[in-house]
Amino acid sequence: MTNSPMDTATALLKRIETCEGTVRAFTTYDPVRIRMEAEQAPAGPLNGLSVGVKDIIDTVGYTTEHGSPIYTGNHSRGDAACVTQLRNAGAVCVGKTVTTEFAFFRPGPTVNPHDVTRTPGGSSSGSAAAVAAGMIDIGLASQTAASLTRPASYCGTVGFKPSYGRYAAAGIKSLAPSFDTLGTITRDVATAARADAVLKGPVATTSHLSPTAPTRIALCRTPHWDEAGEGTRHAVEEAARLFGAHVDVVELDLSDFSDAASLHITIMSYEASQALAWEFTQRRVQLSDQITGLLEAGQRIDYATYRDALARAEELRSRFAALVPSGTAVLAAAAPDVAPLLSEGTGSPLFSRLWTLLRLPTVTLPGLTGLHGLPVGVQLLAPFGEDETLLDQAAWAETVLPSRPVPSVHV
Amino acid sequence: MTNSPMDTATALLKRIETCEGTVRAFTTYDPVRIRMEAEQAPAGPLNGLSVGVKDIIDTVGYTTEHGSPIYTGNHSRGDAACVTQLRNAGAVCVGKTVTTEFAFFRPGPTVNPHDVTRTPGGSSSGSAAAVAAGMIDIGLASQTAASLTRPASYCGTVGFKPSYGRYAAAGIKSLAPSFDTLGTITRDVATAARADAVLKGPVATTSHLSPTAPTRIALCRTPHWDEAGEGTRHAVEEAARLFGAHVDVVELDLSDFSDAASLHITIMSYEASQALAWEFTQRRVQLSDQITGLLEAGQRIDYATYRDALARAEELRSRFAALVPSGTAVLAAAAPDVAPLLSEGTGSPLFSRLWTLLRLPTVTLPGLTGLHGLPVGVQLLAPFGEDETLLDQAAWAETVLPSRPVPSVHV
Repeated sequence: MTNSPMDTATALLKRIETCEGTVRAFTTYDPVRIRMEAEQAPAGPLNGLSVGVKDIIDTVGYTTEHGSPIYTGNHSRGDAACVTQLRNAGAVCVGKTVTTEFAFFRPGPTVNPHDVTRTPGGSSSGSAAAVAAGMIDIGLASQTAASLTRPASYCGTVGFKPSYGRYAAAGIKSLAPSFDTLGTITRDVATAARADAVLKGPVATTSHLSPTAPTRIALCRTPHWDEAGEGTRHAVEEAARLFGAHVDVVELDLSDFSDAASLHITIMSYEASQALAWEFTQRRVQLSDQITGLLEAGQRIDYATYRDALARAEELRSRFAALVPSGTAVLAAAAPDVAPLLSEGTGSPLFSRLWTLLRLPTVTLPGLTGLHGLPVGVQLLAPFGEDETLLDQAAWAETVLPSRPVPSVHV
Repeated sequence: MTNSPMDTATALLKRIETCEGTVRAFTTYDPVRIRMEAEQAPAGPLNGLSVGVKDIIDTVGYTTEHGSPIYTGNHSRGDAACVTQLRNAGAVCVGKTVTTEFAFFRPGPTVNPHDVTRTPGGSSSGSAAAVAAGMIDIGLASQTAASLTRPASYCGTVGFKPSYGRYAAAGIKSLAPSFDTLGTITRDVATAARADAVLKGPVATTSHLSPTAPTRIALCRTPHWDEAGEGTRHAVEEAARLFGAHVDVVELDLSDFSDAASLHITIMSYEASQALAWEFTQRRVQLSDQITGLLEAGQRIDYATYRDALARAEELRSRFAALVPSGTAVLAAAAPDVAPLLSEGTGSPLFSRLWTLLRLPTVTLPGLTGLHGLPVGVQLLAPFGEDETLLDQAAWAETVLPSRPVPSVHV
């Protein structure tokens, strides 16, 4: 932080040169522009921090290709709100990070910095991998199902998905607007809190993070515990044990939320098939089978079914609010297990659908490991709107969990 | 409807040639493209209908300039969801219609077809004026404060703003996402219902409009009745009298919703100053004083104030839902009076802020008149989500109200 902007830029570029050939986290970055931005960055609370921008987010000076050949060479006229907010606060935009196709499943070229034969997760693949590899400090990421939490878990990073609507969505390609949520991937909670103080409003503020244990921790295995692998079971139980040495850990039974995942799929499919209507109608041959399947599924859902799903989701949100008192942190699995092999895709979103449906703020925390010492994250969640409390709790939890595993490309 | 597509296109172009020189409803339209689209339109429920697209909505083949010199010559890569949906259903896109600057206050060149010295209202100025003048059948419009209801009222047209979120927002420039709502301006309720059956989901359906009187009508003068002019007072009272001959009219007292307008302004300012962060930061000299004022006001609001406003808005929505039973139609003023003179701007949004904050569906109905026989609309509103019931009620109300006034440019 006390380095000159040019020292920072030079160190940044050196790190990128070292790692990017292997990790392939960026769709594009420009050393000249990075130096220029570093030199010209206004004084602000994010000075010295570098940002990678998920490639579904409009960014002047770089292409915005949404992970799709339909948008090859696409330049936006302006920056998305979040990019302007971060730049105004003194951060340097390093470039665009790889996203899966339209933030759904078809992967880009990025690999996991902990094991280059494995996926970094998706859809925020490049942001998670670049942060894990130390190429950027803040990865802008988004989540419609599990697109932030899952890569954060696989890459051993901190993932913060705030309450739905907390950060401005202007200039971000939409997939399913009932769920689309902008968030960040960072190496520690403090950096997520610094970014939060900038992204939550029109004027940048300084974060006041105060690590604080939650009143209690509610361990929720979710209705999908049977599908959790060994790494995840161990991580969640171990986190509960470590936290339990300091605060009460109680069980949260959400077995009557078991329709949440299917409600999430109904709403997401219906909305995606509208959000991507032009691409489906005019550019179908350039779409993957995966996203075509999603859009066709959406077309088979009628309005009454969609509306009932929206109404039921609202009911579940109210029920959760009544069940979980303010000050409680919910502890839950972040992903089914360690990162799958690249050949298996970007992993399953199953362990986030419920939470995304509920629109809750969540922090994914690294420190625990599974097979071959690969990272396995755990989620801490809070009641809707308690984002700042959650960040304080996550900062406390960070001190209780083991240190973030260091990726192999780091050496 | 039984005409050939080319006959339709020819008639359409003739009408545009007659009126557009006076009305100036379009930012751009292309006769060659209109003929081509008419010829190639797929068979669908909107065959024979023409659409004007508010110029904050991405449209391939036309510029999308958001009413701002910042976006002069801007071309989008794809169509907004709504444009694709309408085209897929067989409608012809005629061109882009004038919007005020970023759907806020700075007017474009459009005049009111009923009196060319008066405003068509804003921000959906061109869509309302083009529909009133018979140049298009469906004007795509949007509302963040009163941007659809007000021009519909001033131009003597039907304005349908559905429940918040009913139509997809993908590809539409955002102003304040808590309120931004896409809707339509048409000459009759039946056309609004036909468009609704297409815009509400990924697959076009056929409307089943069934004109039905509401169970009861709740006349709501709102906390701003003192600011209603003579034309509006007369129109609302006269509508209540006409409806009262068929159904019970009761009074709805929302005097304890009196903070709604200020809550609306707080939320809108805060969100707009994020949505337009890039324009404010990088292109400030090209912004009007009006929108600069809005954005600066947003920057003076802190997060806690914004969050409290969101929470209070939710509370008012719940309270309204408890007060107004299903099947009730609320009758309210659509605008302060007849359209003001051009020199006075695009009119006041005061009479819609409450309803927009509540996210209710609303149909503005023409037929009543004020000063010089100029149109004055009235609104019918329904509980959230009862859009189809509301359209049925509006189709009934249309038969009870006098006929839509014919604009002078029509002669």
